[in-house]
Amino acid sequence: MATATSIETVPSYIQDAWWTPADGARSTDARDASTGEVLARVSAEGLDLAAAVHHGRTVGQAALGTLTIHERALKLRELAAYLNGRREELYAISARTGATKIDSMVDIDGGIGVLFTFSSKGRRELPNANVIVDGPVEVLSKDGSFIGEHIYTRIPGVAVQINAFNFPVWGMLEKFAPAFIAGVPTIVKPATPSGYLAEAAVRAIVESGILPAGSLQLISGSARNLLDQLDYRDMVSFTGSASTANLLKNHPNVAHGGVRFTSETDSLNAAILGPDAVPGTPEFDAFIKSVVTEMTVKAGQKCTSIRRAIVPNGLRQAVIDAIGARITERVVVGDPRAAGVTMGALASLEQLADVRSAVETMLAAGGELAFGSLDAPRVTRADGTVDAVADGAFMSPVLLSWADAEAPAVHALEAFGPVTSVLGYDTHDGGDVSEAVRLAALGAGSLVATVCTNDPGVARQMVTGIAAHHGRVLVLNREDARTSTGHGSPVPHLVHGGPGRAGGGEELGGIRSVKHHMQRTAIQGSPNMLTAVTGVWHTGADRTAAGSVEFGAVAGAVHPFRKSLAELRIGDAFASGLRQVTLEDITAFANSTEDTFYAHTNAAAAERNPFFPGIVAHGYLLVSWAAGLFVEPEPGPVLANYGLENLRFITPVAAGDSIRVTLTAKKITPRVTDEYGEVCWDAILHNQDGEIVATYDVLTLVEKEDTLYK
Amino acid sequence: MATATSIETVPSYIQDAWWTPADGARSTDARDASTGEVLARVSAEGLDLAAAVHHGRTVGQAALGTLTIHERALKLRELAAYLNGRREELYAISARTGATKIDSMVDIDGGIGVLFTFSSKGRRELPNANVIVDGPVEVLSKDGSFIGEHIYTRIPGVAVQINAFNFPVWGMLEKFAPAFIAGVPTIVKPATPSGYLAEAAVRAIVESGILPAGSLQLISGSARNLLDQLDYRDMVSFTGSASTANLLKNHPNVAHGGVRFTSETDSLNAAILGPDAVPGTPEFDAFIKSVVTEMTVKAGQKCTSIRRAIVPNGLRQAVIDAIGARITERVVVGDPRAAGVTMGALASLEQLADVRSAVETMLAAGGELAFGSLDAPRVTRADGTVDAVADGAFMSPVLLSWADAEAPAVHALEAFGPVTSVLGYDTHDGGDVSEAVRLAALGAGSLVATVCTNDPGVARQMVTGIAAHHGRVLVLNREDARTSTGHGSPVPHLVHGGPGRAGGGEELGGIRSVKHHMQRTAIQGSPNMLTAVTGVWHTGADRTAAGSVEFGAVAGAVHPFRKSLAELRIGDAFASGLRQVTLEDITAFANSTEDTFYAHTNAAAAERNPFFPGIVAHGYLLVSWAAGLFVEPEPGPVLANYGLENLRFITPVAAGDSIRVTLTAKKITPRVTDEYGEVCWDAILHNQDGEIVATYDVLTLVEKEDTLYK
Repeated sequence: MATATSIETVPSYIQDAWWTPADGARSTDARDASTGEVLARVSAEGLDLAAAVHHGRTVGQAALGTLTIHERALKLRELAAYLNGRREELYAISARTGATKIDSMVDIDGGIGVLFTFSSKGRRELPNANVIVDGPVEVLSKDGSFIGEHIYTRIPGVAVQINAFNFPVWGMLEKFAPAFIAGVPTIVKPATPSGYLAEAAVRAIVESGILPAGSLQLISGSARNLLDQLDYRDMVSFTGSASTANLLKNHPNVAHGGVRFTSETDSLNAAILGPDAVPGTPEFDAFIKSVVTEMTVKAGQKCTSIRRAIVPNGLRQAVIDAIGARITERVVVGDPRAAGVTMGALASLEQLADVRSAVETMLAAGGELAFGSLDAPRVTRADGTVDAVADGAFMSPVLLSWADAEAPAVHALEAFGPVTSVLGYDTHDGGDVSEAVRLAALGAGSLVATVCTNDPGVARQMVTGIAAHHGRVLVLNREDARTSTGHGSPVPHLVHGGPGRAGGGEELGGIRSVKHHMQRTAIQGSPNMLTAVTGVWHTGADRTAAGSVEFGAVAGAVHPFRKSLAELRIGDAFASGLRQVTLEDITAFANSTEDTFYAHTNAAAAERNPFFPGIVAHGYLLVSWAAGLFVEPEPGPVLANYGLENLRFITPVAAGDSIRVTLTAKKITPRVTDEYGEVCWDAILHNQDGEIVATYDVLTLVEKEDTLYK
Repeated sequence: MATATSIETVPSYIQDAWWTPADGARSTDARDASTGEVLARVSAEGLDLAAAVHHGRTVGQAALGTLTIHERALKLRELAAYLNGRREELYAISARTGATKIDSMVDIDGGIGVLFTFSSKGRRELPNANVIVDGPVEVLSKDGSFIGEHIYTRIPGVAVQINAFNFPVWGMLEKFAPAFIAGVPTIVKPATPSGYLAEAAVRAIVESGILPAGSLQLISGSARNLLDQLDYRDMVSFTGSASTANLLKNHPNVAHGGVRFTSETDSLNAAILGPDAVPGTPEFDAFIKSVVTEMTVKAGQKCTSIRRAIVPNGLRQAVIDAIGARITERVVVGDPRAAGVTMGALASLEQLADVRSAVETMLAAGGELAFGSLDAPRVTRADGTVDAVADGAFMSPVLLSWADAEAPAVHALEAFGPVTSVLGYDTHDGGDVSEAVRLAALGAGSLVATVCTNDPGVARQMVTGIAAHHGRVLVLNREDARTSTGHGSPVPHLVHGGPGRAGGGEELGGIRSVKHHMQRTAIQGSPNMLTAVTGVWHTGADRTAAGSVEFGAVAGAVHPFRKSLAELRIGDAFASGLRQVTLEDITAFANSTEDTFYAHTNAAAAERNPFFPGIVAHGYLLVSWAAGLFVEPEPGPVLANYGLENLRFITPVAAGDSIRVTLTAKKITPRVTDEYGEVCWDAILHNQDGEIVATYDVLTLVEKEDTLYK
């Protein structure tokens, strides 16, 4: 990190080496948000961006390609644990951006949390491989010899990530994590005003030595020509202003060259108060608390902040009074390094000027100042003194009220600071809240909205009404007011982004964002060929059989339950002989399980049932007997049957019918961190006529080597 | 339809009424492809496009919104059946576009087939509702009071569909079907040269009276200003040339206004012959047949046609000879209305000139004419006479050969007609086919590729190598050569589209394309609130209980198995008492099922197992007993348990432990066409200490009204 005394240039990290521009390069100053002091210079002049892209596409793709999804996911966990140990130094740097300790934790701990979540989701929800199968197999010919399905494979280029100034660490890591799991190298370009914090985080990552070569590169400074280097193999993920997003979208390589482009831009997020949430209810309190939090955290410089509070007309004044009271009681503006400060500075004096100018425009367009002022606020300095004149980018929270809830300015202009507007709506007959829905939609596409109500009907009407205009909707009521992660906080499990003004993009959402770094491709062919391509056994593909009926006894064949993962192969199978089910068996099963459903016990009633020929065997009898038919009882590498999937009963089994089972190793997932792995077996039950009785997947844990009972 | 004698203007269908321009409007001629005769005039001059968009957003959205997904899906089936009865008149019109009978069937029957497939998939794979839940619930607070998940709701605007000239019916219906199922009104704009056929199909659809008001509008003629009317609520799906796609993408409402835009453009699709597929193998024959089919069907005017045949260098001449021989033997060029003709005309004389000019450029850039010629071919006329001079847009198939397989022209220039190039590649040590993969990728993004091999290793290397550059990959071998639907035919079950040059879009793919007409939104809240929003019961939400342990006996409560769909509500539950499992029970179950796995029979071995405390009950015993605990045995509205999902065994049950079950109505899906529907029950097993033993979903069929056993 450049320090304030030496005024160094923030370096870039390119082709696995640190890089600084030549002396005399044009540079921009990065300043302390609270004091205005110059902290560092920023310049990427002379940086070989073509080499960076080439390095990612070659070295980065090759190094990441030697790892499976699970191996990459484990590296993320290792990295997260490492960064946890370096948080204190990052907090210190973060304070210079104007962030309070809580703001810094949202940024730094939040970013590390994304790594942990993606590591865990990558291993739990994705295969330990590099091809992800999407959705079910489609049988495309009558005889099953021609089938189709979809796979995801990583895009063959780089992920360029252009971030906003407000969350230098979280913004970087929440984009990096899914790209890394997908196996796509990242080139990150932080915003210049706070890029020194991103650089410090990248320095820690590089020092950890955890990441493969070429998987992360950093551009400190302008990346104006970076898009010239990209084509359809690459992807750009942008967070920032709509105007910059539009500039990037207009680049020929994006507009016509097939570069995948996704953006997340600020939006005029709404919080809607339900008609039931009157003063005195827990919902009213939760609403006020949420609005004040979103106005003041990060000094309101969050793309998810609440900009429009949409409340029943009758509650407008009550809401304004309660917000004002809470701000007065709780908010202390100042240098985040001073004790007691709860709201820091805006990122820069330029940012402050922009916000003030936006508020002035809104006042001229019909907004009235309901709380706060545009005058320089009384500010607590780092040394604890308080005065009204400061060099930093300080501003007091401002609440606007609008007589005309449809004034275009309130739905179009964003003051990117501690500024919120209050708008009123009327309910109509029968509790219809469509007016609130309509007002929220006037934002023309938002990242997030809060619906604050304890009325299920209101929740349903509001959420389904506004969902298509939003990337995320939070329902706040007495049940989740204390446990909610809050309106303004994207969580890694859920998508972040929104339509229209919010940029039209989608980030996070767990493995959804991993897949955004991959191409979905339909594949068609014979079961054998799709088995070869995906590594997953397909119905109709060859089996290697040990068993009796379907394949005949195979001399010397080993039951697949006797094979460890080291020996087991996709397609290894066992086929049982037939076992007859008698009426006595069904009756005995009914008696022992106490499942005396009429279809198993009452011939007259069973015959009237449209699906049964008369008394039939319990489905649970069939799968229990099937286990008896396929199991190899002696101790061996199969440790447990931990579950069942996709069980469907197709043809009923009546007394006198017989069943047999065929079990085939379908999917094998060795765990990187355990001495065993998951094996998913295709199970199919037939009757004596060869009709399919039931199909399902049996989930087992199997040792990597046959050691426990050897 | 306008007829040739009167030279009428092809009308538009706007705001649920037919519309033709005023006399004297500027118009374009539509001509018969084989004779050049003027068939009709086309003009949209004076059409009120703003009114059309407004009509869709208001009347169309409202009418479609009164139906559920299943109800809309059923209307598609009804429409498909109706159109089946009007195929003959559409074939007759289709012949005027230059299409042979087979070409017409691909277009017309293929389009009707898409309606059938989407109708069936919409009902089988989507809920009978208007909110689709996407993926699992994410628990976001330790106590489970705050959870999140994702929903899809339809976009609140219109789907504008701009189609290419080559498949006027299929191109329209394959875009219309998913939009309609999603509940989004369509405005279709066919290509002018063959728009009279699309208009005939729309006329039949309107005459059927099946569709709700506002759900389909047709613009015949230029729709130049249509995009001026659109915003982030709307979507544009384009099929056609890359240059037109780029023009549309540059429209401010697309570039900056958030209009969702997807395009499918022509690409330089490859067919790769594996090194194993030498002459004499079924794969070689299948490859030759496929290349000739793709060159000549629709006179090669398919965006999926094979433009590059990539073959082992040693087989280049054999491939050229075999293709030439098959064309000579099979292809008869002429008016599709003449008997024996197997390849019709290009769509227009302009099209013919474009194709010839592209071939000439390729010849100048290194391509050599290996078969065929640019001279006017001998043509069979409608009356059966044969001559070399014709007024129609006829051309003979042309095969080019390239000494330099990396010549840029062959990977960049497309002759959109019966034209294919042959390129050679070398294999490297150990059968490495990376050179073929690299050549295929030089197409810079394609709709589809065929990989022709019977070697699983070659299939795996080629398919995973080229997948990220393609929307679809077909593996052709002896097993699927006869049953394959072919390289050039998108199927409704699988995605159609591709990255880069192919436009970057994704159509079809079953319900994937339905979801492309919807917004994915993360929703967060308490279990009760998310239950209210989605109509699906969530763990932690309130239950209405009839049962014993968890809720205590409820006086007068009705067991939920006694409720028909008319009475059953989400959250209706039954909780059982405890039942103890003894060692004798486990032994008896092992004996009766013959499942004598050591964990249930051998104490010493079971104790060594890392997951078990000693002998444990079979998982199948637990679910069988659970059924005994929850079932209401007397005949009633629950007709059958047809399956089980997501079964996971969490805590093992040892001898002496007890289990109890809680069953809760989670999801209710009444069938529109049957007297019953599906009910999915949340099942959870606890032991005597309140630990979770197992969780799963029980799938049942339940009567709409309690009639069968009443």
